[in-house]
Amino acid sequence: MNLLLLREEDFRPDGTAQLEGRRLLHAREVLRAAEGDVLRVGKIGGNVGTGEVLALDESRLVLRCSLDESPPARPGVDLLLAIPRPKALRRVLPAAASLGVDRIVLLNAARVEKSYFDSHVLAQIEDLLILGLGLEQARDTRLPEVMVRERFRPFVEDELEAIFPHGARLLAHPPAAHAAPELAGRAVLAIGPEGGWVPFEIQLLEQHRFTPFSLGPRPLRVEVALPYALGAISRSRINP
Amino acid sequence: MNLLLLREEDFRPDGTAQLEGRRLLHAREVLRAAEGDVLRVGKIGGNVGTGEVLALDESRLVLRCSLDESPPARPGVDLLLAIPRPKALRRVLPAAASLGVDRIVLLNAARVEKSYFDSHVLAQIEDLLILGLGLEQARDTRLPEVMVRERFRPFVEDELEAIFPHGARLLAHPPAAHAAPELAGRAVLAIGPEGGWVPFEIQLLEQHRFTPFSLGPRPLRVEVALPYALGAISRSRINP
Repeated sequence: MNLLLLREEDFRPDGTAQLEGRRLLHAREVLRAAEGDVLRVGKIGGNVGTGEVLALDESRLVLRCSLDESPPARPGVDLLLAIPRPKALRRVLPAAASLGVDRIVLLNAARVEKSYFDSHVLAQIEDLLILGLGLEQARDTRLPEVMVRERFRPFVEDELEAIFPHGARLLAHPPAAHAAPELAGRAVLAIGPEGGWVPFEIQLLEQHRFTPFSLGPRPLRVEVALPYALGAISRSRINP
Repeated sequence: MNLLLLREEDFRPDGTAQLEGRRLLHAREVLRAAEGDVLRVGKIGGNVGTGEVLALDESRLVLRCSLDESPPARPGVDLLLAIPRPKALRRVLPAAASLGVDRIVLLNAARVEKSYFDSHVLAQIEDLLILGLGLEQARDTRLPEVMVRERFRPFVEDELEAIFPHGARLLAHPPAAHAAPELAGRAVLAIGPEGGWVPFEIQLLEQHRFTPFSLGPRPLRVEVALPYALGAISRSRINP
């Protein structure tokens, strides 16, 4: 945890924030904080800054916060992700949040197992995006928006245009002839299931302005392919 | 598992290969192979190709192999990695193998906990590089070479030059002013511990020709930073 993330309901009428539970434990046992220490804090959806420890005991942590810095810049990328198996989803969601992805559509595909949509991981999305490996890791405060869509074709034909009206549309597809382009503006990045997209899916996505590109000859796990692809397309943008 | 990987000792005098255990189970239960089927196979350190199923029962799988294709091209990257906590190491090793990294030095650093060198994960390196998420995932056959070095300074001063005589040397360092360069030749990529390198380490690496670059303002977990950095520097090379 590189950032203590606060929510609206953590703030008291006097403007201080009071924390219990997991964040209190972290401040005590990992940060070994004491009264007077200054911790790095952020507010979900808002700024980051500092929190001075006014009180800290076994039951609560009280902070006086100064939230005057913007969270880190984001690369301007949305994801269209064939929903991966639960174990991979559990890793991909925090990775995507830490990389500053704005929106994630978890989509059905021919080579997706239907049971993935019944996974209990889908009930833990917000925790996965925030805790430990997600926003808290990257010192970001802005939660990616996650949409779950169980029907591929209706999503692409009826919703895609409204949800992603702007920017480039890219389709990671191993046989593609072109390497990842380096982008200047926004992008939607589509990443298929373990077995790849089927021809119908490729066709429909191409009809909707998705340009196939290749990440190279190696089939990569989605949790590796996602940061690899973001590195490839974001190189010139994410940097200072 | 996208590739059944064979070892020298799997081959019988008549040239066929006989498998038991995990690979037999995979062929039966995941691939649902039957006599006459053709499976994708490779030989550790050698070629990839096809294996025709000559016999398959509860105790063995016999394949007639034709290994006439080269494994996938590799990006020409070596890693100098501050040894991560065991849980992260367990993910980073297969990811690095799947990305075609050639050599990995697991190195000490000021912000590394000494106990990481006693982890039982270090006894499982070869399995982690091969099984499931590693070479078997990426359809590669060539095992990355892994070196473990418990002393930072002696490694950098006395061994580095001999181990990595050629190519660019890059140092992922968040405050660096430059973005990741896109490379044409070989590279050694240094990735620090969770808390970052300390100034002495940065200085010593810079004195040994490492150029700092930034992956952006977000602190990333090593298992995310590694593929992200490889995507950023390899964009033009790993592609067909």
